[in-house]
Amino acid sequence: MTDALKRLIKAAQRPEEADIIIQNGTVVDVFSLETFKADVAIKDGYIVGIGTYPKGKHIVNASGKYVMPGFIDGHIHIESTMVTPSEFSRALIKHGVTTVITDPHEIANVAGRIGVDFMLEDAAGTDIDILMKLPSCVPATPFEQNGATLTADDLRPYLSHKNVIGLAEVMDYPSVLNADAGMLAKIQMTTEANLTVDGHAAGLPDSALNVYSTAGIRNDHEAVTAEEAIARVRRGIHVLVREGSAAKDLLALLPAIHERNSSRFSFCTDDKHLDELAEEGTVNYAARLAIKHGLNPLIAIQMATINNAVCHGLENKGAVAPGYTADVLITNSLETLQPETIIKDGRILDLSALKNSRATVPASVQSSLNIKKVTKESLQIPLEAGQKAMMIGVVPGRIITNKIAADVKIEKGFFVPDAVRDQLKIVVCERHHATGSIGVGIVSGLGLKRGAIASTVAHDSHNLVVAGTNDEDILAAIEASERMQGGLVIVEDGKVLASVPLRVGGIMSEKPYEEVIEELHHLHEQLALVAEESQNIFMILSFLCLPVIPSLKLTDKGLFDVDSFQHIEVGIPE
Amino acid sequence: MTDALKRLIKAAQRPEEADIIIQNGTVVDVFSLETFKADVAIKDGYIVGIGTYPKGKHIVNASGKYVMPGFIDGHIHIESTMVTPSEFSRALIKHGVTTVITDPHEIANVAGRIGVDFMLEDAAGTDIDILMKLPSCVPATPFEQNGATLTADDLRPYLSHKNVIGLAEVMDYPSVLNADAGMLAKIQMTTEANLTVDGHAAGLPDSALNVYSTAGIRNDHEAVTAEEAIARVRRGIHVLVREGSAAKDLLALLPAIHERNSSRFSFCTDDKHLDELAEEGTVNYAARLAIKHGLNPLIAIQMATINNAVCHGLENKGAVAPGYTADVLITNSLETLQPETIIKDGRILDLSALKNSRATVPASVQSSLNIKKVTKESLQIPLEAGQKAMMIGVVPGRIITNKIAADVKIEKGFFVPDAVRDQLKIVVCERHHATGSIGVGIVSGLGLKRGAIASTVAHDSHNLVVAGTNDEDILAAIEASERMQGGLVIVEDGKVLASVPLRVGGIMSEKPYEEVIEELHHLHEQLALVAEESQNIFMILSFLCLPVIPSLKLTDKGLFDVDSFQHIEVGIPE
Repeated sequence: MTDALKRLIKAAQRPEEADIIIQNGTVVDVFSLETFKADVAIKDGYIVGIGTYPKGKHIVNASGKYVMPGFIDGHIHIESTMVTPSEFSRALIKHGVTTVITDPHEIANVAGRIGVDFMLEDAAGTDIDILMKLPSCVPATPFEQNGATLTADDLRPYLSHKNVIGLAEVMDYPSVLNADAGMLAKIQMTTEANLTVDGHAAGLPDSALNVYSTAGIRNDHEAVTAEEAIARVRRGIHVLVREGSAAKDLLALLPAIHERNSSRFSFCTDDKHLDELAEEGTVNYAARLAIKHGLNPLIAIQMATINNAVCHGLENKGAVAPGYTADVLITNSLETLQPETIIKDGRILDLSALKNSRATVPASVQSSLNIKKVTKESLQIPLEAGQKAMMIGVVPGRIITNKIAADVKIEKGFFVPDAVRDQLKIVVCERHHATGSIGVGIVSGLGLKRGAIASTVAHDSHNLVVAGTNDEDILAAIEASERMQGGLVIVEDGKVLASVPLRVGGIMSEKPYEEVIEELHHLHEQLALVAEESQNIFMILSFLCLPVIPSLKLTDKGLFDVDSFQHIEVGIPE
Repeated sequence: MTDALKRLIKAAQRPEEADIIIQNGTVVDVFSLETFKADVAIKDGYIVGIGTYPKGKHIVNASGKYVMPGFIDGHIHIESTMVTPSEFSRALIKHGVTTVITDPHEIANVAGRIGVDFMLEDAAGTDIDILMKLPSCVPATPFEQNGATLTADDLRPYLSHKNVIGLAEVMDYPSVLNADAGMLAKIQMTTEANLTVDGHAAGLPDSALNVYSTAGIRNDHEAVTAEEAIARVRRGIHVLVREGSAAKDLLALLPAIHERNSSRFSFCTDDKHLDELAEEGTVNYAARLAIKHGLNPLIAIQMATINNAVCHGLENKGAVAPGYTADVLITNSLETLQPETIIKDGRILDLSALKNSRATVPASVQSSLNIKKVTKESLQIPLEAGQKAMMIGVVPGRIITNKIAADVKIEKGFFVPDAVRDQLKIVVCERHHATGSIGVGIVSGLGLKRGAIASTVAHDSHNLVVAGTNDEDILAAIEASERMQGGLVIVEDGKVLASVPLRVGGIMSEKPYEEVIEELHHLHEQLALVAEESQNIFMILSFLCLPVIPSLKLTDKGLFDVDSFQHIEVGIPE
């Protein structure tokens, strides 16, 4: 270590011997929100000088161009892209995102420490620096059965891992509020290790922000209005401005950001679909969108670089300055921020020869479906003649749902799905430990017209969720899911129309990202044949099991009323 | 620890049960550079809520007033005030400075670890939080003999002390440049402990800033022009804007500071005389001065609070926000920033009952003068008739000196001081280990007309330095210094006119600060009787030994030419 530092110090004195000299560029100064002309010297993966360096071993001419730090994403769930970390890196790096902070919450809910280990291992050899915050809420709630539990004792050993930088989104607000010993232990072991704790204050009142900040939780990515953002900043909570596929908060938060407080805001993604991510990137896209809507480009860059580094305690990332990691972009445009040249860890990246160093998927993660035989009988919802049922009502474009009390079709004392009336059956099968636990409910507004669809991507426990117009196709979809050991599938008349196998814990594909994009494209083409609208039914389905978002959800333990925080019957008592 | 956090979380939920509610104030938001109306709840020494709290156990009405964080001083040498940390706290706290970051470099040069231990112990019970950065350069140079050496191994155990927060000003730039193993060890053990390292880039070119930042040194208090400040900010080096007694850099640096980069600047003091410090404070005064010269008051407050906290890695200080230490000021004025009420660690401070918890001064520190008998013979400078001498030329108001080659008075082959020609004798006696090492030289421009003055405050080794108009008074001054075991003294015709005993390592008084101010006042009154001008001769004297500041200095090893970095003879070769 001392020898490495010695080499850097020597290089700082003799920049002409550095590995790379970037000449004549306009350096983006994220500290002062200014630009200035200078050469930049790079050695052993670090920036070692800003100055005038006419000579060098390897000159990169940046004349007329901007030299800026690589983008940093403050919060993203890689599993949501349905590819592995190594493929995620390959899909994203071309946009200049050189560091992401990820929370392997999804795989942890399936496979616990084995899943976390796989993510760390698969991320170790990627071009992008994939840094991890430890999933803080596994399981997320006691209202469904997931695949694993991670206690403070389970997580503690990871705190010394070089790529672990803190504790991820503390979603379980009640545990913080109640000063639950297990949750406080996770928070305190993290702050005592001088690492940071991420918040998740979705829809919470200001009084809850006081509790979060008092507990040492100092960032949040759930502000959805400018007012909410300001309330956080005032309480010392750094605001991660989220712009993903489902949640797009940027335009709503822009009015809160100005030159005097810009250092308190960063960009993050949270969840983004693979095709969009490969096409447009993540926080680079957010910065571009913000600039398009009038934000000073230097603030946008600051929010996508140094601010994330500071927020997450990364000392040497996010700036073009000596001693900082040489993650540097050269771009023509402060509007698009599209990188012409990407320098990662001091090497000029050849996009045609990216790293492809995948980790082996552990056998237990490859075969993560463990379902007790599902019979037609177990799918029935008993209802008396004339009895009203409580249905889950999908709200277009949102992950919240409505509670709808309605008359439904009943035959021989059981509910019968009816696509014409838009009343489908929805089933959640526990799929981790073959407990045979099954929840069955009724959903409206999904838009499925024929057949059934199934998914093992189902937040947060990732059980098997199926929605269908008839029991036979529902059973066929369950069987198809088991055969491919997880993934997305469409069934009609007992036949599989399309599928996307997700063999890594039932939530990620082990295939190259280009193939996965193709598979997903085909899936959606076939979906259009059996479904009414263009909405992303699989995404909607994946959130219908999440019992922390209002108002009515279904878990393997049955219908769950989020407002009263308890399970309820489908049939409404007379 | 978990129980303490649990209590805070409970209080955040039930602010009406908090210890203190500050009602109806205008909160200064250092994150956004804005103000807003709100109540503030305080419990167990922490802020636990920002909101509307009509009820409380103890209400403080701040109607029409501002509620702001306590001031933080980013860098100050307590020894320069000539009082102990506990007295320093008592003198300063009334100005609302609630945290200082100190470097016990001076006492460490006298007494090594024993001195550092004393400072930590004496600071432990003060009202002000006195946080320490470890002195990095003891001894400062090999060109003089000091009292102790502190290696990386000596310093390492301190890194786990709760009040030690990093490594202090790395002044020994050559050691960094040469990647000296001992210096790199000190830097690396600090950064590896996730603590910060302070810089000292006095007069260094931009290329040296590259080296500093590459080495992980990310702040500096030696910028004296706006250009120097900008060069630092661009390289990721936080600028501590210094406003002390000798060095006053604020007005020169103001033009570099604006709303877009203000978070990269903080205030510090470095060295300030006791009377001025007691009268006007430190960084509170700097903030006030900056406001007077047009800086946005909210930026000035930010620079004197949260920015210092962030720069030095203090997670929970410098803001009025939940989870932050309840060091809070209530003030009427965003111009003077004079606190009406000071809340420290959640207690309203009673200025008439400040803490007075002094540590015992170790015996070896109380008797720090250890001088081999000085004879008249050892004070002689041999010169041949007509030989020119190299004199130290004092530059008014600066700590740099000129080299002056001049004809001097010579009798019987030896130099004779001559007040009329303004050519005095200056003597530096090694005073730590009785080595008998003595340096003798000639000084011009000091302004002393009769007698002699002596001081054991002599940067950085704090040997005994004496300037005089005749050998007899020089010897009498040395004897008087020994009798009182260090301090400042004025002698005329063999008699002591005035003295300030500094029994703590020869650099600090053990008396109450009010008495020390009186003693210093008397000293300067008497000085006016034997000296020509109103300049602070004792301060000038204390810097005439410092062999790292150009151009000509005197150490116990003799005359030192800083430009050529070597000792030279007084007599200039023919």
